[in-house]
Amino acid sequence: MDVGIKLDKLPVRIIDLGADYRFSDTTIYEAWYNVPHKHKDAKRVYGLAEIYRNEIRNAKIIGNAGCFTTASILALAPLVKHHLIESNSIIVDAASGISGAGRGLKLGNHFPELYDNFKAYNVAHHRHTPEIEQALKDIGGEETIVNFTPHLVPMSRGILATCYATIKENISAEVIDAAFQKVYGGEKFIRLLGRDAYPETKFVRGSNYCDLGWHIDERTQRVIILSAIDNLVKGAAGQAVQNFNIAAGFYEGVALHVAPIYP
Amino acid sequence: MDVGIKLDKLPVRIIDLGADYRFSDTTIYEAWYNVPHKHKDAKRVYGLAEIYRNEIRNAKIIGNAGCFTTASILALAPLVKHHLIESNSIIVDAASGISGAGRGLKLGNHFPELYDNFKAYNVAHHRHTPEIEQALKDIGGEETIVNFTPHLVPMSRGILATCYATIKENISAEVIDAAFQKVYGGEKFIRLLGRDAYPETKFVRGSNYCDLGWHIDERTQRVIILSAIDNLVKGAAGQAVQNFNIAAGFYEGVALHVAPIYP
Amino acid sequence: MDVGIKLDKLPVRIIDLGADYRFSDTTIYEAWYNVPHKHKDAKRVYGLAEIYRNEIRNAKIIGNAGCFTTASILALAPLVKHHLIESNSIIVDAASGISGAGRGLKLGNHFPELYDNFKAYNVAHHRHTPEIEQALKDIGGEETIVNFTPHLVPMSRGILATCYATIKENISAEVIDAAFQKVYGGEKFIRLLGRDAYPETKFVRGSNYCDLGWHIDERTQRVIILSAIDNLVKGAAGQAVQNFNIAAGFYEGVALHVAPIYP
Amino acid sequence: MDVGIKLDKLPVRIIDLGADYRFSDTTIYEAWYNVPHKHKDAKRVYGLAEIYRNEIRNAKIIGNAGCFTTASILALAPLVKHHLIESNSIIVDAASGISGAGRGLKLGNHFPELYDNFKAYNVAHHRHTPEIEQALKDIGGEETIVNFTPHLVPMSRGILATCYATIKENISAEVIDAAFQKVYGGEKFIRLLGRDAYPETKFVRGSNYCDLGWHIDERTQRVIILSAIDNLVKGAAGQAVQNFNIAAGFYEGVALHVAPIYP
Repeated sequence: MDVGIKLDKLPVRIIDLGADYRFSDTTIYEAWYNVPHKHKDAKRVYGLAEIYRNEIRNAKIIGNAGCFTTASILALAPLVKHHLIESNSIIVDAASGISGAGRGLKLGNHFPELYDNFKAYNVAHHRHTPEIEQALKDIGGEETIVNFTPHLVPMSRGILATCYATIKENISAEVIDAAFQKVYGGEKFIRLLGRDAYPETKFVRGSNYCDLGWHIDERTQRVIILSAIDNLVKGAAGQAVQNFNIAAGFYEGVALHVAPIYP
Repeated sequence: MDVGIKLDKLPVRIIDLGADYRFSDTTIYEAWYNVPHKHKDAKRVYGLAEIYRNEIRNAKIIGNAGCFTTASILALAPLVKHHLIESNSIIVDAASGISGAGRGLKLGNHFPELYDNFKAYNVAHHRHTPEIEQALKDIGGEETIVNFTPHLVPMSRGILATCYATIKENISAEVIDAAFQKVYGGEKFIRLLGRDAYPETKFVRGSNYCDLGWHIDERTQRVIILSAIDNLVKGAAGQAVQNFNIAAGFYEGVALHVAPIYP
Repeated sequence: MDVGIKLDKLPVRIIDLGADYRFSDTTIYEAWYNVPHKHKDAKRVYGLAEIYRNEIRNAKIIGNAGCFTTASILALAPLVKHHLIESNSIIVDAASGISGAGRGLKLGNHFPELYDNFKAYNVAHHRHTPEIEQALKDIGGEETIVNFTPHLVPMSRGILATCYATIKENISAEVIDAAFQKVYGGEKFIRLLGRDAYPETKFVRGSNYCDLGWHIDERTQRVIILSAIDNLVKGAAGQAVQNFNIAAGFYEGVALHVAPIYP
Repeated sequence: MDVGIKLDKLPVRIIDLGADYRFSDTTIYEAWYNVPHKHKDAKRVYGLAEIYRNEIRNAKIIGNAGCFTTASILALAPLVKHHLIESNSIIVDAASGISGAGRGLKLGNHFPELYDNFKAYNVAHHRHTPEIEQALKDIGGEETIVNFTPHLVPMSRGILATCYATIKENISAEVIDAAFQKVYGGEKFIRLLGRDAYPETKFVRGSNYCDLGWHIDERTQRVIILSAIDNLVKGAAGQAVQNFNIAAGFYEGVALHVAPIYP
């Protein structure tokens, strides 16, 4: 409460890299983070430019979107917005480089434990799940429950989200292609690699890009969307700069037009 | 045809590491591999000991199970056998070390292309898909269509399959636990890490083990099964030795009780 | 010969990334590369800006310095120039990421052969050896024979050269420090980390920097110089751009002020 | 002191994995480790079977040899024993996988700091230096000062030592070959790959082998010996088991005939 009063009175605008201001419904924050929220009436917006750009322009507090959530929401937004998939069918299976686990020292992040190894963690309970659900509801207007499973890849940086959803009846591949074009056609930092394409985390390393490719499985009537970002750029600091540029009325790409480093 | 006649007459028994003898319905082989099958009337069995042990004992030709398929089938078999999941709901999202791609030299497998990188490949079209479907049908008696997505992890060996399925109504977690115990309780090379456990590819590296852990997401009513094998052992040569031991009437673990190497 | 005549008549200036124009004495080229040299009378200069800047300004043909050689020569130049080390005592033990081996497909560069592995190659016979010797002679005026040993590190890019030499009698640590300052004090792309410092390949990844640190072992009376570059930038393309800028009369850092990417 | 009295009275024999009992001259231990030694009159032996086998048989306290030292001493022993190299000319440039740094959590060992990175550490001051010098003196009877430089390779396990020494005049390559044969011809865990061969850490991974290859540079009159071990086996626990077998009068290879795991 105190925190909130103080922040509201400060003559500054805030981009918060933590999770506190990511949720419009603070009871969701409290349920997933197991702490009371201290600024329930904050005027805040979710800091994912491609979805909430207009709200970000004048926001006082921006809750910068998380890394897995950025990759997941950007992958699914066109399909959810145009109501092309069954809302209860979404599964996000994602994998991150180790920098996604932060700089804290834990035995589980010790080099020999992770090198030449692959594993899942926080199955069914990762805190990025409700962020994804909130954004998909905002985008599509429909309550959405998502399965989200993160994995650790023995590499430094990069996230790939592999997203599954059941396509509604009579929706063609061309309609799906068109949805991606419509929603992202003018975006600076979304690169549509197209249908049947394979984004790779290395294609975006060091850059603010989100690369998207999608595949249609006619046998199972599912669409599989692949989404790659650099978790340390578009998934964190780059996103914050992008939000800052929008909030400040600057050109959105200031300081962000850095080419990926390959190989 | 010629091949078949010749093989049938040979006074030997065969364990084939290729895909030719993995399918009871050779039209499925022809559809996914795009070549005519030359030995359609072969008396063969699928070489996955935990599922087809009795048939392997007397088989003349054993089509050794593939790597992704071994991890996937062993993960799902207890649930399919006891009819605990919706058969049309299965998604297998798997990841393999680079040795799974063979020793052939391709730019895509060149070290700098793969290192510090993560990507999917063959989405909706990987040839291990029909193998998984065939075994699940054999086990559960029901036609099953599966979404299978492989990924490449920058490591040498190891496969982790993350399998999703919708739990049928009124099936409790304890029933699921019991199914794994019943089906695998006496198996030498299946290690049941239990509910809420996290298999890691490094836990099985160099060994013939398949480690299994499972998680229940009450929000989405899905079960997520994690399955780890060493693709070069339980996923290939080790499996062949296990099949050989069974076919020869030997103790099944001869030459296979090698501890995993960690880290 | 033909090649030479044609090149000499072309109204262009050339920066060659191959080894053909790296040697003033083409018999050395012929001895180490086992092919006849076709342009023996070429007017060329060795393309290592920090050492040959003045010659590069007006050169028609610039033989861009190799990757291991750049790291090695820059490490040793101050000591050789100021005659602080015994010329017959130099050993360069270096290690490179796999991109240093080029994009050619060889089993030895296949991912599983190199991952989680470390090895030397071309001991006593690597073709970068005479390049190092030529430059050290140019710098110090003295014939110098060097032991050069390259190793392969399971990483994408980066070279670290660990250089050993016996310090001449009565040369103090401060004199050594001063030599580095004098020779490189004004250089844009040399970062002197100082005595007792540890350059890391990751500190220079993606950049045109060469980081240098040096250590004095009083017990053995040797100096050990550590030199880190990104083999794909300062060791190849970045160096070519730097040479181009000098040759064209541009500001030397055009297009090269890119920060390293870490981690 | 107390410690010593207690240990001496215990009716057990001890294999110590720490450094306390590695030195016959405890003042060397005190100088390099900066702590007083508490058991100066201990009857101990250096636990490197190939060199001190006879002493190990009846030892009460065995100071198990360290990892870098094992690789280095085994590489140089034949040349030192047969007086083929200049004793003041030895340089050991070595590299280790990260498990060599232990399980302690330090930011410097955090995955993203080490992955895709290569660096040296403890130049001129690594505590394995005096161990190497002690053994070489024991073997050759001559005081020897060594330059030892360790590096960290982004891999889990394995050490490669690249050792340089000046060959004495008129010593032929054949004499050098013969020295290796004479000293190691009957050894179970030394594999002589031969002159011009390239040991790789992966060739010994998971095994108790030490692989040796050597090269002669006629231009510089130096021999370069390459030595590979698995630091967690021949460099630590495997060595301890080998010492135990000898001390207990068992067959020396009990529990140690494990094949390396490749790839």
